[in-house]
Amino acid sequence: MPLTNHQVRLAARPNGLPRATDWSLTTEEVPEPAEGQLVVAVSHLSVDPAMRGWMNAGASYVPPVEIGAVMRAGAVGRVTASAHPGFAAGDDVYGTFGVQEYAVSDGRGVIKIDTSLAGPSTYLGALGMTGLTAYFGLLDTGRLKEGDTVVVSGAAGAVGSVAGQIAKIKGARVIGLAGGPEKCRALTEEFGFDAAIDYRAGNVRRALREHAPRGVDVYFDNVGGEILEAALANLAMRARVVLCGAISQYNETEVRGPANYMALLVRRARMEGFLVFDFTDRYDEGLREIAGWIAKGRIVVREQVVSGTVDDFPATLDMLFRGENVGKLVLQLT
Amino acid sequence: MPLTNHQVRLAARPNGLPRATDWSLTTEEVPEPAEGQLVVAVSHLSVDPAMRGWMNAGASYVPPVEIGAVMRAGAVGRVTASAHPGFAAGDDVYGTFGVQEYAVSDGRGVIKIDTSLAGPSTYLGALGMTGLTAYFGLLDTGRLKEGDTVVVSGAAGAVGSVAGQIAKIKGARVIGLAGGPEKCRALTEEFGFDAAIDYRAGNVRRALREHAPRGVDVYFDNVGGEILEAALANLAMRARVVLCGAISQYNETEVRGPANYMALLVRRARMEGFLVFDFTDRYDEGLREIAGWIAKGRIVVREQVVSGTVDDFPATLDMLFRGENVGKLVLQLT
Repeated sequence: MPLTNHQVRLAARPNGLPRATDWSLTTEEVPEPAEGQLVVAVSHLSVDPAMRGWMNAGASYVPPVEIGAVMRAGAVGRVTASAHPGFAAGDDVYGTFGVQEYAVSDGRGVIKIDTSLAGPSTYLGALGMTGLTAYFGLLDTGRLKEGDTVVVSGAAGAVGSVAGQIAKIKGARVIGLAGGPEKCRALTEEFGFDAAIDYRAGNVRRALREHAPRGVDVYFDNVGGEILEAALANLAMRARVVLCGAISQYNETEVRGPANYMALLVRRARMEGFLVFDFTDRYDEGLREIAGWIAKGRIVVREQVVSGTVDDFPATLDMLFRGENVGKLVLQLT
Repeated sequence: MPLTNHQVRLAARPNGLPRATDWSLTTEEVPEPAEGQLVVAVSHLSVDPAMRGWMNAGASYVPPVEIGAVMRAGAVGRVTASAHPGFAAGDDVYGTFGVQEYAVSDGRGVIKIDTSLAGPSTYLGALGMTGLTAYFGLLDTGRLKEGDTVVVSGAAGAVGSVAGQIAKIKGARVIGLAGGPEKCRALTEEFGFDAAIDYRAGNVRRALREHAPRGVDVYFDNVGGEILEAALANLAMRARVVLCGAISQYNETEVRGPANYMALLVRRARMEGFLVFDFTDRYDEGLREIAGWIAKGRIVVREQVVSGTVDDFPATLDMLFRGENVGKLVLQLT
């Protein structure tokens, strides 16, 4: 009897926060793999702020998800059938399998993972794109140096929590920005940040001035908006502003540009964007170093794993935009 | 009989465009130089967009001009009396002498110039801070490479016209943005730009896409605002946006930040500010190279010299903000 695949497809391009009507739930039979293909039973879906951008029309760093297509998502799962020489049934794999229970893949971008070393969700987080994003953004684009004062926004999130910990390992002083006392406590007590600022609790610009009186050398931005402006107002000379994300703006119909961007001139600073995909030939290097830090307890991995079905994906994605997650947000299919 | 010094002082901090009431005209006797001082009769005043920033309260890259102080200005003049070992009466000099007829100086930052090689106004322009700003901004901050597509805004202005010509010398394709057909004609016919876009005549974003279909490698920004956004919308991969100025915003009470700044992420591009003062130890190198290009006719120097008294300074400064000048704007004191 053929298996049934439940899928979440993009039904409409959202205006602002995605609504239920922007999604459609479909079912399909799972085909046998054709020559060169494999079939994967998806077990864990990565839930990422960048997904909101993929839902918009227009070219970005990747093409948009087409209306009617299965929503794009990084995922891990197990090969159930393979007609691909590189994979066998039973292999645990990572790939861009999409928000569905079963994926048929030609093997491109599919990586075997060893779930005896770390749980599947960790390959979506610290040992996956999330950790690599933090690693290359901070060390390469941010050119972090020992003794730097580093500020990370969205610091309790998946990338932010790893970025801050890597900065500590590399000898920086690290200040994290997060929303609410609970997340701020996690930053200092769990992730070892030197200080945490609750952006909901007061004037971020002033708080940064107090915590970084000699200025911010590296600002790792996951949020954009007013917090980016507050950081720009507190740059040290020759500071590096690393553009990783702008979650505060993803659901805005009119994006707020940083009004004080000329602080970059006053401080002879730079603001630079990067994508983890530019570093594919160095993934091994990054993953080896991150795995070593995790093994030594120098990086604390925190994941928020929601159990459910693919139908729970829209509500799980909403958690990101409401700032409800600490660490990597994962939807585990039960 | 002591000489009388007419001066223009800052009377109030402008809100928006400077008004007559923001200035006061004063007269003083010119003192004899004390030990270590020299007195300079100012002949030419540099009139620069950056002056508007110096009039605002708050720290920038230089302290603001204090209320009641003589307005800061780069200038050239001739030493009339000296009790300084490095200068003698009759020396032609450049310095930050301010908007006044006579300046008493301790010699710091004062440079002797040879007016037999180039006219005094050129030492305020292409052979002065203006030329050096174009040179280091484009070649160092902008990391210009042969074959790059370069876009310069404010391209008919003092810095822009030199920056575009240096880019041409270095083997780039150069597109200039300026206001009005006359300036655009100057760009292509006089300064040798490959193309000119009249930003008043239509959609700049679309015009840039047509003129730079493979994207902009270096954007040298003198204006900010909508034109900066149009350039960000047309960046090539790994583009460099050089922040030199933002004249469109200097008189705005609310600065417009670039709403599409995340184009820097999509294109893995950087936006970076610089100040010519950071390159003081390389001024000689820059000036030698620029002087050579001028001598060979590879850089066409254009100056707009207004003759008048210091009392004409406020009206001359206004010309900048109305976009009336082509090339370096200088007030020659008669």
